[in-house]
Amino acid sequence: MGLNKESGISLGKWPKGKRNLITDVPGVKVGQVTLNDGDIKTGVTAIIPHEGDLFHEKLMAGAAVINGFGKSAGLVQIDELGTLETPIIMTNTLSVGTALTASVKYMLSKNPDIGVETGTVNCVVTECNDGVLNDIRGLHVTEDHVFQALENACDSFEEGAVGSGTGMCCLGVKGGIGSSSRTFPLDGSDYTIGAIVMSNFGSDDNLRIGDNFIGPKIDAFLKNEAGKKDKGSIIIIIATDAPLSDRQLRRVAKRAMISLGRVGSFSGNGSGDIAVAFSTANRLPHYSKKAILDVKVLHDEAIDDLFEASVEAVEEAIISSLYHAETTEGVRGNKKYGLKTFL
Amino acid sequence: MGLNKESGISLGKWPKGKRNLITDVPGVKVGQVTLNDGDIKTGVTAIIPHEGDLFHEKLMAGAAVINGFGKSAGLVQIDELGTLETPIIMTNTLSVGTALTASVKYMLSKNPDIGVETGTVNCVVTECNDGVLNDIRGLHVTEDHVFQALENACDSFEEGAVGSGTGMCCLGVKGGIGSSSRTFPLDGSDYTIGAIVMSNFGSDDNLRIGDNFIGPKIDAFLKNEAGKKDKGSIIIIIATDAPLSDRQLRRVAKRAMISLGRVGSFSGNGSGDIAVAFSTANRLPHYSKKAILDVKVLHDEAIDDLFEASVEAVEEAIISSLYHAETTEGVRGNKKYGLKTFL
Amino acid sequence: MGLNKESGISLGKWPKGKRNLITDVPGVKVGQVTLNDGDIKTGVTAIIPHEGDLFHEKLMAGAAVINGFGKSAGLVQIDELGTLETPIIMTNTLSVGTALTASVKYMLSKNPDIGVETGTVNCVVTECNDGVLNDIRGLHVTEDHVFQALENACDSFEEGAVGSGTGMCCLGVKGGIGSSSRTFPLDGSDYTIGAIVMSNFGSDDNLRIGDNFIGPKIDAFLKNEAGKKDKGSIIIIIATDAPLSDRQLRRVAKRAMISLGRVGSFSGNGSGDIAVAFSTANRLPHYSKKAILDVKVLHDEAIDDLFEASVEAVEEAIISSLYHAETTEGVRGNKKYGLKTFL
Amino acid sequence: MGLNKESGISLGKWPKGKRNLITDVPGVKVGQVTLNDGDIKTGVTAIIPHEGDLFHEKLMAGAAVINGFGKSAGLVQIDELGTLETPIIMTNTLSVGTALTASVKYMLSKNPDIGVETGTVNCVVTECNDGVLNDIRGLHVTEDHVFQALENACDSFEEGAVGSGTGMCCLGVKGGIGSSSRTFPLDGSDYTIGAIVMSNFGSDDNLRIGDNFIGPKIDAFLKNEAGKKDKGSIIIIIATDAPLSDRQLRRVAKRAMISLGRVGSFSGNGSGDIAVAFSTANRLPHYSKKAILDVKVLHDEAIDDLFEASVEAVEEAIISSLYHAETTEGVRGNKKYGLKTFL
Repeated sequence: MGLNKESGISLGKWPKGKRNLITDVPGVKVGQVTLNDGDIKTGVTAIIPHEGDLFHEKLMAGAAVINGFGKSAGLVQIDELGTLETPIIMTNTLSVGTALTASVKYMLSKNPDIGVETGTVNCVVTECNDGVLNDIRGLHVTEDHVFQALENACDSFEEGAVGSGTGMCCLGVKGGIGSSSRTFPLDGSDYTIGAIVMSNFGSDDNLRIGDNFIGPKIDAFLKNEAGKKDKGSIIIIIATDAPLSDRQLRRVAKRAMISLGRVGSFSGNGSGDIAVAFSTANRLPHYSKKAILDVKVLHDEAIDDLFEASVEAVEEAIISSLYHAETTEGVRGNKKYGLKTFL
Repeated sequence: MGLNKESGISLGKWPKGKRNLITDVPGVKVGQVTLNDGDIKTGVTAIIPHEGDLFHEKLMAGAAVINGFGKSAGLVQIDELGTLETPIIMTNTLSVGTALTASVKYMLSKNPDIGVETGTVNCVVTECNDGVLNDIRGLHVTEDHVFQALENACDSFEEGAVGSGTGMCCLGVKGGIGSSSRTFPLDGSDYTIGAIVMSNFGSDDNLRIGDNFIGPKIDAFLKNEAGKKDKGSIIIIIATDAPLSDRQLRRVAKRAMISLGRVGSFSGNGSGDIAVAFSTANRLPHYSKKAILDVKVLHDEAIDDLFEASVEAVEEAIISSLYHAETTEGVRGNKKYGLKTFL
Repeated sequence: MGLNKESGISLGKWPKGKRNLITDVPGVKVGQVTLNDGDIKTGVTAIIPHEGDLFHEKLMAGAAVINGFGKSAGLVQIDELGTLETPIIMTNTLSVGTALTASVKYMLSKNPDIGVETGTVNCVVTECNDGVLNDIRGLHVTEDHVFQALENACDSFEEGAVGSGTGMCCLGVKGGIGSSSRTFPLDGSDYTIGAIVMSNFGSDDNLRIGDNFIGPKIDAFLKNEAGKKDKGSIIIIIATDAPLSDRQLRRVAKRAMISLGRVGSFSGNGSGDIAVAFSTANRLPHYSKKAILDVKVLHDEAIDDLFEASVEAVEEAIISSLYHAETTEGVRGNKKYGLKTFL
Repeated sequence: MGLNKESGISLGKWPKGKRNLITDVPGVKVGQVTLNDGDIKTGVTAIIPHEGDLFHEKLMAGAAVINGFGKSAGLVQIDELGTLETPIIMTNTLSVGTALTASVKYMLSKNPDIGVETGTVNCVVTECNDGVLNDIRGLHVTEDHVFQALENACDSFEEGAVGSGTGMCCLGVKGGIGSSSRTFPLDGSDYTIGAIVMSNFGSDDNLRIGDNFIGPKIDAFLKNEAGKKDKGSIIIIIATDAPLSDRQLRRVAKRAMISLGRVGSFSGNGSGDIAVAFSTANRLPHYSKKAILDVKVLHDEAIDDLFEASVEAVEEAIISSLYHAETTEGVRGNKKYGLKTFL
């Protein structure tokens, strides 16, 4: 639900969507599996881009590698073809292989033509390193966890230390899953842009919540507590029902870096900062009798409101991921305080 | 001099260089020509990367196109070869051709081998559109103005509505030229990173100076004054004496987008946001008897302080460009207030 | 006219267009000015993408930097916005500034809104270094030459040592301007793809004309003649009336590297190998009341014929540029033989 | 062994290395597991970049996405950091997840610090779709197969329908694994560049072996045999002991597209054409007490021989993969003839 009124935090100027979640974009669903048991602090978060047949009705998509210290799979083909044809899976860095295999099996089970009558499938799997709190070397995510996350996907979902965000840390505090949305007008109708993030980046002293530069306060507290400097990454998924081309979606994805700057990141060397944006407006058929397709795209001169709304949604999704995450103790006695400790 | 103590504005945590200008990086010089006469509000700012023979002793360099609604020349070759072999010229958008010809003539006059014994030369010219205040269609910049800017280059220079910044507007107020620098340690020695910007971007209501979100105040004032929505661009040049490779310099250039986010930009569609970074540490010979060269590069794990210092220097350079720019009236009666009006 | 039957050379399997020139794509026009006087061996070639108002009805476009040792202007914005809004000028490397200024003036004269009611304009200027045969340091191209080339643009044009190709050298022989076209079916209708090149690249011993690996023969001859090793570049402009998106046009542009490989290039370090592709199918309005536009794009699964036809057209355009270029003596007594010397 | 004298095929002008394999580059090893049993026609090929501790002594690397219809993992980080820190695994498209997990486990077993004292690891896995001959939906590659390929890596290895190439098809004939190498001088010493490819691309009628344009002959034969049109991909791995920077290695990788053009590819839409190049000359420490490192890089003006030698090695590696592959029958009765059928 992003940041509700009780949080006392207000970011940006564009109206929020109904749920203030990425699922405000019609058709987008999110499912999660949380693994939280002793040293195991990890999980899976799955984003399903639309309710139909993903492989045979692809969406336009674009990705931006903000800082490429990351191991996401599936970005090469998004860049070449500008399409998304599977769910997007988030998990921990060392479980990308497992999630990829699971996603492949999921797509094979739904599409008997893959690998026989037609080519293969480009599964998208993204990741952050939860090794500070999670026994990441244990490879605790299984294919079944991925299937479960895909199966339980729906309109509403938890934020904070849940799903693939269970073991994440960010800007000195507990990170995790966060989401938010904004609406904006085009040609007299309202459109929605929503973001979901897995936050796991930043230094202990850099958090900014709007004009509240709270980082030094967190840092001072952590120094007394023998805190550990964060490193890490962020995955940012952006969805909209506005008709953007793949090029325009790449532009949207790239602007997530603006949001990172506003919450205090300088995109550190070791941070795998990856953004993927997709639009549900055009469905591109896998098989088409006609070579020439009719699509709708936004005039680039009309894109600024969407850009700004997207920057706000991503910024709020990050802060929301921190706001909803509770204090967590994990592997090797490492502990991360929830943001609320400092508010 | 960036933001001095009298400004009452303090940004970031890294120490400033001696002059708090890009010229704190040894060897870097800046020269400017200001054209400020009625409807003519434009000029030239030239950055000379080192004091030696630029063409025969090239520097490593990297560029980032943050948003490519821009007409800069020379970036293709920087991307391919990772080197800078000429001064960098800043001017208005429609004068890039003139500045390019002038820069070519400047290089030809110094290097009789160009175009005869060896190949050609890659002159770098960057631009913003100063058409709100300047009669940009008049093409008032001449080759002589470029030569003069190159000739008067030295360690100290003015900021604000000067040089190529004379007619620029930014975030609702008068933009222009700004600079700043930071120092940071590597292997026990101090190094410097400095930035110079030509600021010309942003919406009337978005300016942020650290945690002072002053944009809405500016916007409210301008609405009463029939202000004109800004559009535009920013050019960001970053220099360091730390030994970065071209790949690392591209990483530094890319992080200027973080600084843009912090001062309130969302990198609008029409903004040509371009950053170029160079290092003075390695000089690469144009002619070399040996095929294999010894160079120094930074370990990527040691780059975070530099990244953060660079983000701060760029942020402060932008704010400094506004701080030093006085209220200016230009073509068609357009007027931009200096930032000090609102402090 | 590309390679006619008398040439005895046949390349590829797709049908040629009527003229076997890039102007077979309806609306595309080419104009040239040849400067051939003693040491002056240079000129201008201008490609006009469509017959209408270029700035207010833009075309989709994509560019590929095959090897970026080049000084072309205007590619940054093509990459960001995916549009072409001016003619494309070809000239020598050191005259890019002059051609840029001329192209700006040409666009200003046609569009009183530029720089006043709307932003600036992105002129595209491409180049190769003709310094082996031309007194390139003399900067002999003037703005008037550019205006003349634009004014005399029409459906038919000369190939070989003409226009901007007057002083170019390629693969040991005289280079220059060449063009070719191919047709292919989509949804039951015929479409055309055409290329025009300015050839100036390659080593003396590497020319391949289809399966005729003639390079060693040329090299052996030149060694006796104290030939000079070529260096250089190639500019490749590709036009089609098939409805490709900017992403697809970038894919087409990139495949010009295939053609380079087939004629014997290995894309040497010093070669500025740049390709720009545009489609005349969608005209994108500069001003639009509606934010959402309807456009036609090709299904990517239907693009292979076009890819192959484009690779053939570029390959033949290169060979045609050599076939039509006559033996030329230029500056410092340098001499390049026409290809026909060796056939 | 690439193409030996008995093949009667000779490509290029640079001298071949001792084995005419990528393992001519000192330290490079290749291991394979072949799965050839009825409908199962697949496997694993592993390239080990040097004999030492790969994670703690990284190599400089660069990648080029020639056509991104592909699912390789690990390229994002190569692009950002310019380093390779693991073996490179080749397998079939749907087994990338399994190979990724196996590679992660292999690295974890050798490096107890990964995920605890330091960050994670970037495993590189590349793929082609062998679904024409292999029951690719069966996911027959196991983690053990990957471990075996890594364990049996050595200086010599088989080419043709072996390892990950067991089920691949290319240019109308049986594809697979091929390799070749070339030597060239720098500063008076000999250096080596070698390539290994997994070939699986191209149309039935396009094969070119040097100036022998044999494709139409193959196509005519296959039409009578009810052959199936190829689609597919190619993975190209290039190694050298010359000291190239990551930027220079990316340039080398990109030039594999030249080789593709020469053997008859036009880089079709559905082809995942990916090249990765690495240099064994500089070993970059994972942990370093010093922030500033001394490295050796090639002067870009001295790179042309290496470029051309690399283009030749890749071209010959492709032809060698076809030359060594025997006629194979696979799933659904599909059959691909070995190239020797047509020579």
